Amino acid sequence: MISSDYTADLCIRDATSRIVLLVIDGLGGLPHPETGRSELETASLPHLDQLARRASCGVLSPLGPGFTPGSGPAHLALFGYDPWTSDIGRGALSALGLGLDFSPGDVAARLNFCTIDEQGLVTDRRAGRIPTEVCERLCKILGQVDIEGVEVCVAPEMEYRAAVVFRGEGLAAGVSDSDPQVTGHAPLPLRGSGDQDDRMIDVAEQFLVQARQLLAQESPANMVLIRGFGAYPSLATMQQAYGLTPVGIAGYPMYRGVARAVGMETPDTEYDLASETQLLTRLWHDTQADFFYVHVKKTDSAGEDGNFDLKVSLLEEADTYLPAITDLDPDVLIVTGDHSTPSTMGSHSWHPIPVAVASQRALPMPSATFDERGCSLGSLGHLPSSSLMALALAHAGRLSKFGA
Amino acid sequence: MISSDYTADLCIRDATSRIVLLVIDGLGGLPHPETGRSELETASLPHLDQLARRASCGVLSPLGPGFTPGSGPAHLALFGYDPWTSDIGRGALSALGLGLDFSPGDVAARLNFCTIDEQGLVTDRRAGRIPTEVCERLCKILGQVDIEGVEVCVAPEMEYRAAVVFRGEGLAAGVSDSDPQVTGHAPLPLRGSGDQDDRMIDVAEQFLVQARQLLAQESPANMVLIRGFGAYPSLATMQQAYGLTPVGIAGYPMYRGVARAVGMETPDTEYDLASETQLLTRLWHDTQADFFYVHVKKTDSAGEDGNFDLKVSLLEEADTYLPAITDLDPDVLIVTGDHSTPSTMGSHSWHPIPVAVASQRALPMPSATFDERGCSLGSLGHLPSSSLMALALAHAGRLSKFGA
Repeated sequence: MISSDYTADLCIRDATSRIVLLVIDGLGGLPHPETGRSELETASLPHLDQLARRASCGVLSPLGPGFTPGSGPAHLALFGYDPWTSDIGRGALSALGLGLDFSPGDVAARLNFCTIDEQGLVTDRRAGRIPTEVCERLCKILGQVDIEGVEVCVAPEMEYRAAVVFRGEGLAAGVSDSDPQVTGHAPLPLRGSGDQDDRMIDVAEQFLVQARQLLAQESPANMVLIRGFGAYPSLATMQQAYGLTPVGIAGYPMYRGVARAVGMETPDTEYDLASETQLLTRLWHDTQADFFYVHVKKTDSAGEDGNFDLKVSLLEEADTYLPAITDLDPDVLIVTGDHSTPSTMGSHSWHPIPVAVASQRALPMPSATFDERGCSLGSLGHLPSSSLMALALAHAGRLSKFGA
Repeated sequence: MISSDYTADLCIRDATSRIVLLVIDGLGGLPHPETGRSELETASLPHLDQLARRASCGVLSPLGPGFTPGSGPAHLALFGYDPWTSDIGRGALSALGLGLDFSPGDVAARLNFCTIDEQGLVTDRRAGRIPTEVCERLCKILGQVDIEGVEVCVAPEMEYRAAVVFRGEGLAAGVSDSDPQVTGHAPLPLRGSGDQDDRMIDVAEQFLVQARQLLAQESPANMVLIRGFGAYPSLATMQQAYGLTPVGIAGYPMYRGVARAVGMETPDTEYDLASETQLLTRLWHDTQADFFYVHVKKTDSAGEDGNFDLKVSLLEEADTYLPAITDLDPDVLIVTGDHSTPSTMGSHSWHPIPVAVASQRALPMPSATFDERGCSLGSLGHLPSSSLMALALAHAGRLSKFGA
């Protein structure tokens, strides 16, 4: 982890080697009850299996045994940051990912457009998953919110999701969510973690009162839930920590956000792998970037939806794009996930995630396969995700010797 | 470990899932020099092997590589406490386990009835392992000890073992043992770790002087050795730390003691598995408890005695009781040990201990066997024992996600 006193000094900043980190979201799974094989074990993955046979393989645990991460902490761990202490509010990740005007002192939050009844009880937490165009129109309406001494910026994300940035004196981010998480209940009152949050609570409550008035005649989205308050993150950049020039290739705002939070450039891209590998190829040839984070989103969504077969076919689709990456012949190519999302659980989980680190300096197992059980017997063993960056730098010849 | 600031917040306290933790004392072993197979590998364990094939398996290290734990730290690690900083004096465990009147401010210690000669040299540290009934009679005699300003309570444990609780002003527990550990030597003088221990040393010395007078005419037990001074432990309970309602099913006082130290109820039971599984079944149906710790003692004693074959047969006996537990269909069933006790060493050791975590959310290896080498290739890998509770809670669906 970059919290180590030694890491920065050990980095050779003028190395010319280049690293690609392909993160397949929600990669890990669990056995299907009928076949006994996980999604990865079921899928036909000729390119990933071939990669595993020339890579150092292992399994990664984002937060340690038993603890299930959100996507933010899981990615921060992959990038070498302590996921427990470097946590960034989801709202801040969204604001960064959307490229909003967001600076130190501001507080961001996520908004979910929802449906409430006459009593104010939430009847649909996602307002029937309104299309993104409706979300854009409603965000413009919320642009009329007027709070004394505070600038408010509302921007659409996807479907029913949006983000808000508050700018003003005395704002703090230790505020709880209004989302009751279940229908049939009123939104929760906002609570702070101490006196320093009083001003933010007052501002957010004013925002919610005005939002309810402004959206009252809309349907089905006639209210917002607010959640994931987050201040502007103050992390060392990957340039500062590792001497890398990193670039993030991710279509989804939240992953662009976590990439920007650690100092990556995040050029625009769609979130399919065809677009992402095209962008990777262009940046590979046209820029001096030496660390390329590529994010595959859909696999996680399939796992979250409990759709085992869809996750299998999306893994197979991802496999077909691997040659486009290996053709670039990166000095180090790492394929892993941010966390597991077993289809049988329909949610993120704590289970360790396969990882393959391919480089001239790898120690492969000849019979390796790219799946949970195959990689758990690899030469890297079981590691915290936050150890991956040191291994990436080492396999790239970018870490010097410690001690004489 | 529960020292994490986050753990408590991550616990879903209203979950209805139930966890059974079966601890087979001294479980791990080493290969027999003639066969090359350990006790577990020699034993026929059809039920445990079947469990391993549907469980996440691994190996646990109580204190980290190389360090051999006593039973107290080894159990505290299993319960999720830092075994290095949460250590409890053996005397305190005995006092808790015997259900003595023992409160904050009191100091407890273990007593071993022993034999000394006319010069006061120890000739038998266990007084020929006097039967428990003799121990009970001698404890009554020691009830006559009279020390100004101090209440003294002496109670029998098993055979030559007893416990004493001192209650008074200014008592502290940083006092060394009088047990010389070898025969032919006088009991050691008591030493403190600082000025704060002076009063306790003075009280304990008065106790030993009077004990020698009171026991002078007895045979073979004509003196006591004092050891394992311990203050009343101040640990967070498992209820506080995990939101669990835990119960400890253990016949031996010391294991009841460590269970009580972390807030478990400890109903009376004999220490054979027949009685213990009967009690488990009754509590399972008649109470709201959701965490059941079940302790198997005899395997450790066989290892300590260097009796390889006896340990093998006791492991096979334990295996026959597994169906009585699996029939309850707990959401999570964990089988492990507190530490290894290889018969070839005749003592506790540092070697990692097999663990199987059976649940719907497990990742089994199809060819797993429940032994040291089989479990070391399991999907859990090598873990500190103190990670087990987070895994138990996770497999029980009792931990929520960290971060968005």
